[in-house]
Amino acid sequence: MADVTERDWRPRYVQLAEELRDRIVNGELPAGSPLPSEPELAARTGMSRTSVRNALRELREWGLVRAEQGRGTFVRAPKVRVTRRNIERYQWEKDRVHQPEEMRRQKGGTEYDTGLEVHQLQFHAEYSTVDASEEIAATFKVQAGTKLLRRMYWTSAKTEDAPLSMSVSYLIYDAVAKNPALLDDKNEPWPGGTHHQLSTIGVEVDHVSDHVIARPPTPSEVEILRTEPGDWILSIRKISTGVDGKVVEVADAVYPADRTELVYGIKLHPWEKK
Amino acid sequence: MADVTERDWRPRYVQLAEELRDRIVNGELPAGSPLPSEPELAARTGMSRTSVRNALRELREWGLVRAEQGRGTFVRAPKVRVTRRNIERYQWEKDRVHQPEEMRRQKGGTEYDTGLEVHQLQFHAEYSTVDASEEIAATFKVQAGTKLLRRMYWTSAKTEDAPLSMSVSYLIYDAVAKNPALLDDKNEPWPGGTHHQLSTIGVEVDHVSDHVIARPPTPSEVEILRTEPGDWILSIRKISTGVDGKVVEVADAVYPADRTELVYGIKLHPWEKK
Repeated sequence: MADVTERDWRPRYVQLAEELRDRIVNGELPAGSPLPSEPELAARTGMSRTSVRNALRELREWGLVRAEQGRGTFVRAPKVRVTRRNIERYQWEKDRVHQPEEMRRQKGGTEYDTGLEVHQLQFHAEYSTVDASEEIAATFKVQAGTKLLRRMYWTSAKTEDAPLSMSVSYLIYDAVAKNPALLDDKNEPWPGGTHHQLSTIGVEVDHVSDHVIARPPTPSEVEILRTEPGDWILSIRKISTGVDGKVVEVADAVYPADRTELVYGIKLHPWEKK
Repeated sequence: MADVTERDWRPRYVQLAEELRDRIVNGELPAGSPLPSEPELAARTGMSRTSVRNALRELREWGLVRAEQGRGTFVRAPKVRVTRRNIERYQWEKDRVHQPEEMRRQKGGTEYDTGLEVHQLQFHAEYSTVDASEEIAATFKVQAGTKLLRRMYWTSAKTEDAPLSMSVSYLIYDAVAKNPALLDDKNEPWPGGTHHQLSTIGVEVDHVSDHVIARPPTPSEVEILRTEPGDWILSIRKISTGVDGKVVEVADAVYPADRTELVYGIKLHPWEKK
Protein backbone atom coordinates (compact mmCIF):
# COMPACT_ATOMS: atom_id res chain seq x y z
CA MET A 1 0.00 0.00 0.00
CA ALA A 2 1.34 3.41 -0.91
CA ASP A 3 2.09 5.64 2.03
CA VAL A 4 0.21 8.82 1.20
CA THR A 5 1.93 10.73 4.01
CA GLU A 6 5.23 10.36 2.12
CA ARG A 7 5.94 13.88 0.88
CA ASP A 8 8.04 13.00 -2.13
CA TRP A 9 6.39 10.49 -4.43
CA ARG A 10 9.33 10.15 -6.82
CA PRO A 11 11.45 6.97 -6.89
CA ARG A 12 14.23 7.16 -4.32
CA TYR A 13 16.97 6.91 -6.96
CA VAL A 14 15.56 10.07 -8.57
CA GLN A 15 15.60 11.79 -5.18
CA LEU A 16 19.25 10.79 -4.66
CA ALA A 17 20.15 11.93 -8.17
CA GLU A 18 18.50 15.29 -7.54
CA GLU A 19 20.22 15.71 -4.19
CA LEU A 20 23.62 15.10 -5.84
CA ARG A 21 22.61 17.37 -8.71
CA ASP A 22 21.89 20.21 -6.27
CA ARG A 23 25.26 19.67 -4.59
CA ILE A 24 27.01 19.87 -7.99
CA VAL A 25 25.05 22.90 -9.15
CA ASN A 26 25.63 24.85 -5.92
CA GLY A 27 29.36 24.13 -6.06
CA GLU A 28 29.60 21.87 -3.01
CA LEU A 29 30.88 19.15 -5.36
CA PRO A 30 33.13 21.15 -7.70
CA ALA A 31 34.18 20.20 -11.25
CA GLY A 32 36.73 17.39 -11.24
CA SER A 33 35.86 16.15 -7.76
CA PRO A 34 34.86 12.52 -7.21
CA LEU A 35 31.34 11.59 -6.14
CA PRO A 36 31.06 9.41 -3.03
CA SER A 37 31.52 5.74 -4.02
CA GLU A 38 28.57 3.43 -4.64
CA PRO A 39 29.04 1.56 -1.32
CA GLU A 40 29.27 4.86 0.57
CA LEU A 41 26.10 6.17 -1.05
CA ALA A 42 24.30 2.87 -0.42
CA ALA A 43 25.36 2.86 3.23
CA ARG A 44 24.43 6.50 3.81
CA THR A 45 21.00 6.31 2.15
CA GLY A 46 20.04 2.74 2.99
CA MET A 47 19.36 2.21 -0.71
CA SER A 48 20.31 -0.86 -2.77
CA ARG A 49 23.41 -0.77 -4.98
CA THR A 50 21.06 -1.03 -7.98
CA SER A 51 19.18 2.11 -6.92
CA VAL A 52 22.45 3.96 -6.31
CA ARG A 53 23.64 2.93 -9.76
CA ASN A 54 20.36 4.17 -11.26
CA ALA A 55 20.93 7.53 -9.58
CA LEU A 56 24.45 7.76 -11.01
CA ARG A 57 23.14 6.83 -14.44
CA GLU A 58 20.68 9.74 -14.25
CA LEU A 59 23.52 12.12 -13.39
CA ARG A 60 25.49 10.87 -16.39
CA GLU A 61 22.46 11.34 -18.64
CA TRP A 62 22.07 14.91 -17.39
CA GLY A 63 25.66 15.49 -18.45
CA LEU A 64 26.77 16.35 -14.92
CA VAL A 65 29.20 13.52 -14.21
CA ARG A 66 31.51 11.17 -16.07
CA ALA A 67 32.30 7.57 -15.12
CA GLU A 68 35.97 6.61 -15.38
CA GLN A 69 36.65 2.91 -15.74
CA GLY A 70 37.86 1.50 -12.41
CA ARG A 71 38.29 4.96 -10.85
CA GLY A 72 34.78 6.09 -9.99
CA THR A 73 32.44 8.89 -10.97
CA PHE A 74 33.62 12.50 -11.35
CA VAL A 75 31.92 15.86 -11.69
CA ARG A 76 32.40 17.05 -15.26
CA ALA A 77 34.47 20.16 -15.85
CA PRO A 78 32.40 22.79 -17.58
CA LYS A 79 34.33 23.76 -20.68
CA VAL A 80 34.99 27.34 -21.72
CA ARG A 81 31.77 28.60 -23.28
CA VAL A 82 32.23 30.42 -26.55
CA THR A 83 29.56 33.06 -27.18
CA ARG A 84 28.74 33.59 -30.83
CA ARG A 85 26.91 36.77 -31.77
CA ASN A 86 26.18 36.03 -35.40
CA ILE A 87 24.15 39.15 -36.23
CA GLU A 88 27.09 41.40 -35.30
CA ARG A 89 29.59 38.90 -36.64
CA TYR A 90 28.12 38.67 -40.12
CA GLN A 91 27.98 42.47 -40.41
CA TRP A 92 31.60 42.66 -39.17
CA GLU A 93 32.65 40.05 -41.75
CA LYS A 94 30.91 41.98 -44.51
CA ASP A 95 32.33 45.37 -43.51
CA ARG A 96 35.86 43.96 -43.18
CA VAL A 97 36.05 43.45 -46.95
CA HIS A 98 36.94 47.10 -47.45
CA GLN A 99 39.71 47.12 -44.85
CA PRO A 100 43.32 47.11 -46.06
CA GLU A 101 44.80 43.61 -46.53
CA GLU A 102 47.15 44.11 -43.60
CA MET A 103 44.17 44.43 -41.25
CA ARG A 104 42.22 41.63 -42.89
CA ARG A 105 45.18 39.32 -42.25
CA GLN A 106 45.25 40.08 -38.54
CA LYS A 107 41.82 38.97 -37.50
CA GLY A 108 39.49 36.25 -38.76
CA GLY A 109 36.12 35.01 -37.59
CA THR A 110 37.44 32.73 -34.85
CA GLU A 111 39.65 35.49 -33.42
CA TYR A 112 36.52 37.66 -33.42
CA ASP A 113 34.50 35.04 -31.49
CA THR A 114 37.09 33.96 -28.99
CA GLY A 115 39.28 37.00 -28.41
CA LEU A 116 42.32 34.82 -29.19
CA GLU A 117 44.96 36.02 -31.64
CA VAL A 118 46.08 34.54 -34.96
CA HIS A 119 49.26 33.03 -33.50
CA GLN A 120 47.23 31.18 -30.81
CA LEU A 121 45.04 29.41 -33.36
CA GLN A 122 45.53 26.55 -35.75
CA PHE A 123 43.51 26.95 -38.94
CA HIS A 124 42.70 24.16 -41.39
CA ALA A 125 40.98 24.27 -44.77
CA GLU A 126 40.33 21.49 -47.24
CA TYR A 127 38.59 21.98 -50.60
CA SER A 128 36.95 19.40 -52.83
CA THR A 129 34.26 19.31 -55.49
CA VAL A 130 30.95 17.50 -55.07
CA ASP A 131 27.67 17.14 -56.93
CA ALA A 132 24.82 18.95 -55.18
CA SER A 133 22.49 16.63 -53.24
CA GLU A 134 18.73 17.12 -53.70
CA GLU A 135 18.59 19.04 -50.46
CA ILE A 136 21.50 21.45 -51.05
CA ALA A 137 20.38 21.93 -54.66
CA ALA A 138 16.89 22.92 -53.44
CA THR A 139 18.43 25.51 -51.11
CA PHE A 140 20.51 26.99 -53.96
CA LYS A 141 17.53 26.65 -56.35
CA VAL A 142 19.70 24.77 -58.86
CA GLN A 143 19.48 21.28 -60.41
CA ALA A 144 20.52 18.36 -58.22
CA GLY A 145 23.99 17.27 -59.36
CA THR A 146 25.21 20.81 -60.06
CA LYS A 147 28.95 20.98 -59.37
CA LEU A 148 29.76 22.61 -56.04
CA LEU A 149 32.97 23.70 -54.37
CA ARG A 150 32.93 22.10 -50.92
CA ARG A 151 35.17 23.83 -48.39
CA MET A 152 35.76 22.27 -45.00
CA TYR A 153 37.22 24.40 -42.20
CA TRP A 154 38.19 23.76 -38.63
CA THR A 155 39.98 25.94 -36.14
CA SER A 156 41.52 24.95 -32.84
CA ALA A 157 43.34 26.77 -30.09
CA LYS A 158 46.99 25.64 -30.07
CA THR A 159 46.62 24.79 -26.38
CA GLU A 160 43.62 22.48 -26.90
CA ASP A 161 43.06 19.29 -28.85
CA ALA A 162 39.39 19.69 -29.67
CA PRO A 163 38.58 22.32 -32.31
CA LEU A 164 36.44 25.30 -31.37
CA SER A 165 34.38 24.95 -34.51
CA MET A 166 34.06 23.00 -37.69
CA SER A 167 32.21 24.05 -40.79
CA VAL A 168 31.49 23.03 -44.34
CA SER A 169 30.73 25.70 -46.93
CA TYR A 170 29.26 25.14 -50.39
CA LEU A 171 29.60 27.53 -53.32
CA ILE A 172 28.44 27.09 -56.94
CA TYR A 173 31.61 25.89 -58.68
CA ASP A 174 31.04 27.62 -62.01
CA ALA A 175 30.37 30.96 -60.35
CA VAL A 176 33.50 30.74 -58.21
CA ALA A 177 35.71 29.51 -61.07
CA LYS A 178 35.62 33.04 -62.52
CA ASN A 179 38.46 33.65 -60.06
CA PRO A 180 40.66 30.51 -60.11
CA ALA A 181 42.43 31.60 -56.91
CA LEU A 182 39.19 30.79 -55.09
CA LEU A 183 39.46 27.11 -56.09
CA ASP A 184 42.72 26.45 -54.24
CA ASP A 185 42.77 25.75 -50.51
CA LYS A 186 46.44 26.79 -50.40
CA ASN A 187 45.14 30.36 -50.49
CA GLU A 188 43.48 29.84 -47.07
CA PRO A 189 43.20 31.51 -44.66
CA TRP A 190 42.09 34.11 -47.19
CA PRO A 191 42.46 37.59 -45.72
CA GLY A 192 38.92 38.86 -45.30
CA GLY A 193 37.30 35.44 -45.60
CA THR A 194 34.30 34.44 -47.69
CA HIS A 195 32.86 37.94 -48.09
CA HIS A 196 36.16 39.08 -49.58
CA GLN A 197 36.43 35.97 -51.73
CA LEU A 198 32.91 36.57 -53.09
CA SER A 199 33.69 40.26 -53.67
CA THR A 200 36.38 39.21 -56.19
CA ILE A 201 33.64 37.69 -58.38
CA GLY A 202 31.33 40.67 -57.95
CA VAL A 203 29.06 39.25 -55.22
CA GLU A 204 27.77 41.32 -52.29
CA VAL A 205 25.81 39.46 -49.62
CA ASP A 206 22.47 41.11 -48.78
CA HIS A 207 21.07 38.85 -46.07
CA VAL A 208 21.87 35.69 -44.16
CA SER A 209 19.65 33.27 -42.31
CA ASP A 210 20.77 31.01 -39.49
CA HIS A 211 18.84 27.77 -39.01
CA VAL A 212 19.73 26.42 -35.58
CA ILE A 213 19.14 22.88 -34.38
CA ALA A 214 20.67 20.65 -31.71
CA ARG A 215 21.30 16.98 -32.50
CA PRO A 216 23.56 14.08 -31.57
CA PRO A 217 26.89 14.30 -33.42
CA THR A 218 27.65 12.00 -36.35
CA PRO A 219 30.57 9.57 -35.88
CA SER A 220 32.99 11.82 -37.76
CA GLU A 221 31.89 14.82 -35.70
CA VAL A 222 32.57 12.84 -32.52
CA GLU A 223 36.04 12.11 -33.85
CA ILE A 224 36.86 15.68 -34.83
CA LEU A 225 35.12 17.60 -32.04
CA ARG A 226 36.05 14.97 -29.41
CA THR A 227 32.64 15.18 -27.80
CA GLU A 228 31.94 12.84 -24.91
CA PRO A 229 29.32 10.08 -25.17
CA GLY A 230 25.85 11.54 -24.71
CA ASP A 231 26.93 15.06 -25.72
CA TRP A 232 24.95 16.83 -28.41
CA ILE A 233 26.03 19.51 -30.84
CA LEU A 234 24.57 22.81 -31.99
CA SER A 235 24.35 22.91 -35.75
CA ILE A 236 23.79 26.11 -37.73
CA ARG A 237 22.91 26.06 -41.39
CA LYS A 238 23.76 29.51 -42.70
CA ILE A 239 22.20 30.54 -46.03
CA SER A 240 23.66 33.69 -47.62
CA THR A 241 21.80 35.53 -50.35
CA GLY A 242 23.35 38.13 -52.68
CA VAL A 243 21.94 41.53 -53.54
CA ASP A 244 20.53 40.00 -56.75
CA GLY A 245 18.36 37.62 -54.66
CA LYS A 246 20.39 34.48 -55.49
CA VAL A 247 21.64 32.12 -52.78
CA VAL A 248 25.44 32.37 -52.96
CA GLU A 249 26.63 30.20 -50.09
CA VAL A 250 25.21 27.39 -47.98
CA ALA A 251 27.29 26.52 -44.94
CA ASP A 252 26.89 24.15 -42.01
CA ALA A 253 28.76 24.89 -38.81
CA VAL A 254 28.75 22.59 -35.80
CA TYR A 255 29.73 23.46 -32.24
CA PRO A 256 30.00 21.28 -29.14
CA ALA A 257 26.75 22.18 -27.35
CA ASP A 258 28.31 22.04 -23.89
CA ARG A 259 30.63 24.94 -24.68
CA THR A 260 28.67 27.18 -27.04
CA GLU A 261 26.13 29.95 -26.54
CA LEU A 262 24.49 31.75 -29.47
CA VAL A 263 23.23 35.29 -28.94
CA TYR A 264 20.85 37.04 -31.32
CA GLY A 265 20.03 40.66 -30.46
CA ILE A 266 16.83 41.88 -32.05
CA LYS A 267 15.83 45.57 -32.36
CA LEU A 268 12.07 46.05 -32.62
CA HIS A 269 10.37 48.80 -34.60
CA PRO A 270 8.75 51.42 -32.37
CA TRP A 271 4.99 51.63 -31.96
CA GLU A 272 3.58 54.32 -34.19
CA LYS A 273 2.62 57.43 -32.28
CA LYS A 274 -1.10 58.06 -32.34
CA MET B 1 50.06 -8.18 -36.48
CA ALA B 2 47.78 -5.59 -37.99
CA ASP B 3 46.67 -6.33 -41.53
CA VAL B 4 47.60 -3.15 -43.38
CA THR B 5 45.61 -4.25 -46.44
CA GLU B 6 42.42 -3.95 -44.34
CA ARG B 7 40.70 -0.90 -45.81
CA ASP B 8 38.70 0.18 -42.79
CA TRP B 9 40.75 0.61 -39.60
CA ARG B 10 37.79 1.37 -37.34
CA PRO B 11 36.54 -1.15 -34.78
CA ARG B 12 34.06 -3.54 -36.35
CA TYR B 13 31.23 -2.50 -34.02
CA VAL B 14 31.62 1.08 -35.31
CA GLN B 15 31.47 -0.21 -38.87
CA LEU B 16 28.28 -2.14 -38.10
CA ALA B 17 26.78 0.90 -36.35
CA GLU B 18 27.57 3.07 -39.35
CA GLU B 19 26.15 0.55 -41.79
CA LEU B 20 22.87 0.47 -39.82
CA ARG B 21 22.98 4.26 -39.54
CA ASP B 22 23.19 4.58 -43.33
CA ARG B 23 20.24 2.20 -43.75
CA ILE B 24 18.19 4.31 -41.31
CA VAL B 25 19.19 7.63 -42.87
CA ASN B 26 18.46 6.48 -46.43
CA GLY B 27 15.04 5.17 -45.39
CA GLU B 28 15.68 1.45 -45.91
CA LEU B 29 14.90 1.01 -42.20
CA PRO B 30 12.00 3.48 -41.73
CA ALA B 31 10.87 5.08 -38.46
CA GLY B 32 9.14 2.60 -36.17
CA SER B 33 10.62 -0.49 -37.84
CA PRO B 34 12.57 -3.03 -35.76
CA LEU B 35 16.30 -3.54 -36.26
CA PRO B 36 17.42 -7.12 -36.92
CA SER B 37 17.80 -8.94 -33.58
CA GLU B 38 21.16 -9.31 -31.85
CA PRO B 39 21.50 -13.00 -32.80
CA GLU B 40 20.62 -12.21 -36.43
CA LEU B 41 23.21 -9.43 -36.59
CA ALA B 42 25.84 -11.62 -34.90
CA ALA B 43 25.17 -14.49 -37.32
CA ARG B 44 25.22 -12.26 -40.41
CA THR B 45 28.39 -10.37 -39.50
CA GLY B 46 30.31 -13.10 -37.70
CA MET B 47 30.74 -10.65 -34.80
CA SER B 48 30.40 -11.45 -31.10
CA ARG B 49 27.18 -10.58 -29.25
CA THR B 50 29.20 -8.03 -27.25
CA SER B 51 30.31 -6.26 -30.42
CA VAL B 52 26.76 -6.26 -31.76
CA ARG B 53 25.55 -4.79 -28.48
CA ASN B 54 28.24 -2.11 -28.70
CA ALA B 55 27.01 -1.21 -32.17
CA LEU B 56 23.41 -0.93 -30.93
CA ARG B 57 24.58 1.23 -28.02
CA GLU B 58 26.22 3.62 -30.51
CA LEU B 59 22.98 3.90 -32.47
CA ARG B 60 21.10 4.70 -29.25
CA GLU B 61 23.66 7.37 -28.37
CA TRP B 62 23.28 8.93 -31.81
CA GLY B 63 19.55 9.19 -31.06
CA LEU B 64 18.61 6.97 -34.01
CA VAL B 65 17.06 4.00 -32.24
CA ARG B 66 15.24 3.21 -29.01
CA ALA B 67 15.49 -0.03 -27.04
CA GLU B 68 12.18 -1.38 -25.76
CA GLN B 69 12.43 -3.75 -22.82
CA GLY B 70 11.95 -7.33 -24.01
CA ARG B 71 10.80 -6.25 -27.49
CA GLY B 72 13.99 -5.26 -29.29
CA THR B 73 15.42 -2.13 -30.85
CA PHE B 74 13.36 0.22 -33.01
CA VAL B 75 14.12 3.09 -35.34
CA ARG B 76 12.99 6.30 -33.65
CA ALA B 77 10.17 8.28 -35.19
CA PRO B 78 11.31 11.78 -36.07
CA LYS B 79 8.84 14.13 -34.40
CA VAL B 80 7.19 17.07 -36.11
CA ARG B 81 9.74 19.86 -36.17
CA VAL B 82 8.46 23.24 -35.04
CA THR B 83 10.25 26.16 -36.70
CA ARG B 84 10.53 29.26 -34.54
CA ARG B 85 11.37 32.54 -36.26
CA ASN B 86 11.86 34.72 -33.22
CA ILE B 87 12.92 37.93 -34.99
CA GLU B 88 9.64 38.06 -36.91
CA ARG B 89 7.71 36.66 -33.94
CA TYR B 90 8.81 39.29 -31.45
CA GLN B 91 7.93 42.09 -33.88
CA TRP B 92 4.55 40.44 -34.51
CA GLU B 93 3.94 40.18 -30.77
CA LYS B 94 4.82 43.82 -30.29
CA ASP B 95 2.67 45.06 -33.19
CA ARG B 96 -0.30 42.98 -32.08
CA VAL B 97 -0.75 45.19 -29.01
CA HIS B 98 -2.61 47.78 -31.08
CA GLN B 99 -5.00 45.29 -32.67
CA PRO B 100 -8.59 45.21 -31.39
CA GLU B 101 -9.16 42.79 -28.50
CA GLU B 102 -11.24 40.47 -30.68
CA MET B 103 -8.22 39.85 -32.92
CA ARG B 104 -5.79 39.60 -30.01
CA ARG B 105 -7.96 36.82 -28.57
CA GLN B 106 -7.83 34.76 -31.73
CA LYS B 107 -4.14 34.15 -32.07
CA GLY B 108 -1.34 33.77 -29.52
CA GLY B 109 2.34 33.00 -29.88
CA THR B 110 1.94 29.24 -30.14
CA GLU B 111 -0.74 29.55 -32.82
CA TYR B 112 1.71 31.83 -34.65
CA ASP B 113 4.52 29.26 -34.44
CA THR B 114 2.57 26.12 -35.21
CA GLY B 115 -0.23 27.22 -37.50
CA LEU B 116 -2.67 25.50 -35.12
CA GLU B 117 -5.79 27.33 -33.91
CA VAL B 118 -6.82 28.34 -30.40
CA HIS B 119 -9.32 25.48 -30.07
CA GLN B 120 -6.62 22.90 -30.93
CA LEU B 121 -4.32 24.01 -28.12
CA GLN B 122 -4.32 23.62 -24.37
CA PHE B 123 -2.82 26.61 -22.60
CA HIS B 124 -1.57 26.62 -19.00
CA ALA B 125 -0.30 29.49 -16.84
CA GLU B 126 0.75 29.46 -13.21
CA TYR B 127 1.95 32.56 -11.33
CA SER B 128 3.97 32.78 -8.12
CA THR B 129 6.31 35.25 -6.45
CA VAL B 130 10.00 34.59 -5.85
CA ASP B 131 13.04 36.47 -4.62
CA ALA B 132 15.50 37.22 -7.43
CA SER B 133 18.53 34.91 -7.47
CA GLU B 134 21.98 36.51 -7.87
CA GLU B 135 21.94 35.62 -11.54
CA ILE B 136 18.46 36.90 -12.45
CA ALA B 137 19.06 40.01 -10.32
CA ALA B 138 22.26 40.73 -12.26
CA THR B 139 20.36 40.46 -15.54
CA PHE B 140 17.67 42.90 -14.31
CA LYS B 141 20.38 45.08 -12.68
CA VAL B 142 18.53 44.99 -9.35
CA GLN B 143 19.49 43.77 -5.87
CA ALA B 144 19.45 40.01 -5.30
CA GLY B 145 16.29 39.18 -3.36
CA THR B 146 14.13 41.75 -5.18
CA LYS B 147 10.57 40.43 -5.39
CA LEU B 148 9.71 39.02 -8.82
CA LEU B 149 6.52 37.77 -10.41
CA ARG B 150 7.32 34.32 -11.79
CA ARG B 151 5.01 33.16 -14.56
CA MET B 152 5.18 29.61 -15.84
CA TYR B 153 3.52 28.75 -19.15
CA TRP B 154 3.15 25.62 -21.18
CA THR B 155 1.12 24.88 -24.28
CA SER B 156 0.25 21.55 -25.79
CA ALA B 157 -1.67 20.41 -28.83
CA LYS B 158 -4.88 18.68 -27.68
CA THR B 159 -3.90 15.66 -29.76
CA GLU B 160 -0.48 15.22 -28.12
CA ASP B 161 0.67 14.57 -24.59
CA ALA B 162 4.00 16.37 -24.66
CA PRO B 163 3.81 20.16 -24.67
CA LEU B 164 5.19 22.08 -27.63
CA SER B 165 6.93 24.54 -25.36
CA MET B 166 7.40 25.49 -21.74
CA SER B 167 8.57 28.83 -20.45
CA VAL B 168 9.15 30.78 -17.29
CA SER B 169 8.93 34.56 -17.35
CA TYR B 170 10.14 36.94 -14.64
CA LEU B 171 8.88 40.51 -14.16
CA ILE B 172 9.73 43.00 -11.39
CA TYR B 173 6.81 42.58 -8.98
CA ASP B 174 6.56 46.20 -7.85
CA ALA B 175 6.52 47.48 -11.43
CA VAL B 176 3.80 45.05 -12.46
CA ALA B 177 1.69 45.63 -9.32
CA LYS B 178 0.72 49.03 -10.73
CA ASN B 179 -1.92 47.02 -12.62
CA PRO B 180 -3.22 44.37 -10.18
CA ALA B 181 -4.87 42.45 -13.04
CA LEU B 182 -1.35 41.48 -14.11
CA LEU B 183 -0.77 39.61 -10.85
CA ASP B 184 -3.54 37.04 -11.36
CA ASP B 185 -3.01 33.97 -13.55
CA LYS B 186 -6.80 33.65 -13.94
CA ASN B 187 -6.48 36.48 -16.47
CA GLU B 188 -4.41 34.20 -18.74
CA PRO B 189 -4.31 33.70 -21.65
CA TRP B 190 -4.19 37.51 -21.75
CA PRO B 191 -5.27 38.76 -25.18
CA GLY B 192 -2.15 40.23 -26.72
CA GLY B 193 0.26 38.54 -24.33
CA THR B 194 3.16 40.08 -22.46
CA HIS B 195 3.60 43.10 -24.75
CA HIS B 196 -0.01 44.07 -24.11
CA GLN B 197 0.30 43.37 -20.38
CA LEU B 198 3.38 45.61 -20.21
CA SER B 199 1.62 48.32 -22.25
CA THR B 200 -0.94 48.65 -19.42
CA ILE B 201 1.86 49.82 -17.13
CA GLY B 202 3.35 52.14 -19.73
CA VAL B 203 6.18 49.87 -20.93
CA GLU B 204 7.20 49.59 -24.60
CA VAL B 205 9.83 46.97 -25.44
CA ASP B 206 12.69 48.36 -27.54
CA HIS B 207 14.90 45.33 -28.08
CA VAL B 208 15.15 41.68 -27.18
CA SER B 209 18.10 39.33 -27.06
CA ASP B 210 17.90 35.56 -27.39
CA HIS B 211 20.65 33.54 -25.70
CA VAL B 212 20.51 30.03 -27.15
CA ILE B 213 22.11 26.96 -25.61
CA ALA B 214 21.51 23.23 -25.81
CA ARG B 215 21.78 21.15 -22.64
CA PRO B 216 20.44 17.97 -21.04
CA PRO B 217 16.99 18.54 -19.53
CA THR B 218 16.52 18.84 -15.77
CA PRO B 219 14.38 16.15 -14.12
CA SER B 220 11.27 18.34 -14.07
CA GLU B 221 11.79 19.20 -17.74
CA VAL B 222 11.99 15.48 -18.56
CA GLU B 223 8.72 15.01 -16.75
CA ILE B 224 6.89 17.88 -18.44
CA LEU B 225 8.37 17.68 -21.95
CA ARG B 226 8.44 13.84 -21.88
CA THR B 227 11.85 13.74 -23.53
CA GLU B 228 13.44 10.35 -24.03
CA PRO B 229 16.64 9.36 -22.20
CA GLY B 230 19.64 10.91 -23.90
CA ASP B 231 17.59 13.70 -25.52
CA TRP B 232 18.74 17.27 -25.06
CA ILE B 233 16.74 20.48 -25.06
CA LEU B 234 17.17 23.86 -26.69
CA SER B 235 16.95 26.60 -24.10
CA ILE B 236 16.46 30.27 -24.96
CA ARG B 237 16.92 32.99 -22.39
CA LYS B 238 15.09 36.02 -23.75
CA ILE B 239 15.97 39.40 -22.25
CA SER B 240 13.60 42.25 -23.12
CA THR B 241 14.62 45.87 -22.64
CA GLY B 242 12.21 48.81 -22.61
CA VAL B 243 12.59 52.08 -24.50
CA ASP B 244 14.00 53.62 -21.28
CA GLY B 245 16.91 51.15 -21.37
CA LYS B 246 15.72 49.06 -18.40
CA VAL B 247 15.39 45.29 -18.57
CA VAL B 248 11.67 44.60 -18.21
CA GLU B 249 11.37 40.83 -18.64
CA VAL B 250 13.70 37.86 -18.36
CA ALA B 251 12.23 34.63 -19.72
CA ASP B 252 13.53 31.11 -20.22
CA ALA B 253 11.89 28.91 -22.83
CA VAL B 254 12.80 25.29 -23.39
CA TYR B 255 12.02 23.16 -26.40
CA PRO B 256 12.66 19.46 -27.08
CA ALA B 257 15.75 19.67 -29.33
CA ASP B 258 14.67 16.78 -31.55
CA ARG B 259 11.60 18.67 -32.74
CA THR B 260 12.64 22.32 -32.81
CA GLU B 261 14.42 24.49 -35.36
CA LEU B 262 15.21 28.17 -34.67
CA VAL B 263 15.57 30.51 -37.63
CA TYR B 264 17.15 33.96 -37.41
CA GLY B 265 17.09 36.02 -40.60
CA ILE B 266 19.69 38.77 -40.65
CA LYS B 267 19.65 41.73 -43.07
CA LEU B 268 23.13 43.20 -43.62
CA HIS B 269 23.84 46.87 -44.26
CA PRO B 270 24.97 47.52 -47.85
CA TRP B 271 28.56 48.37 -48.67
CA GLU B 272 28.96 52.06 -49.10
CA LYS B 273 29.29 53.12 -52.70
CA LYS B 274 32.67 54.59 -53.48
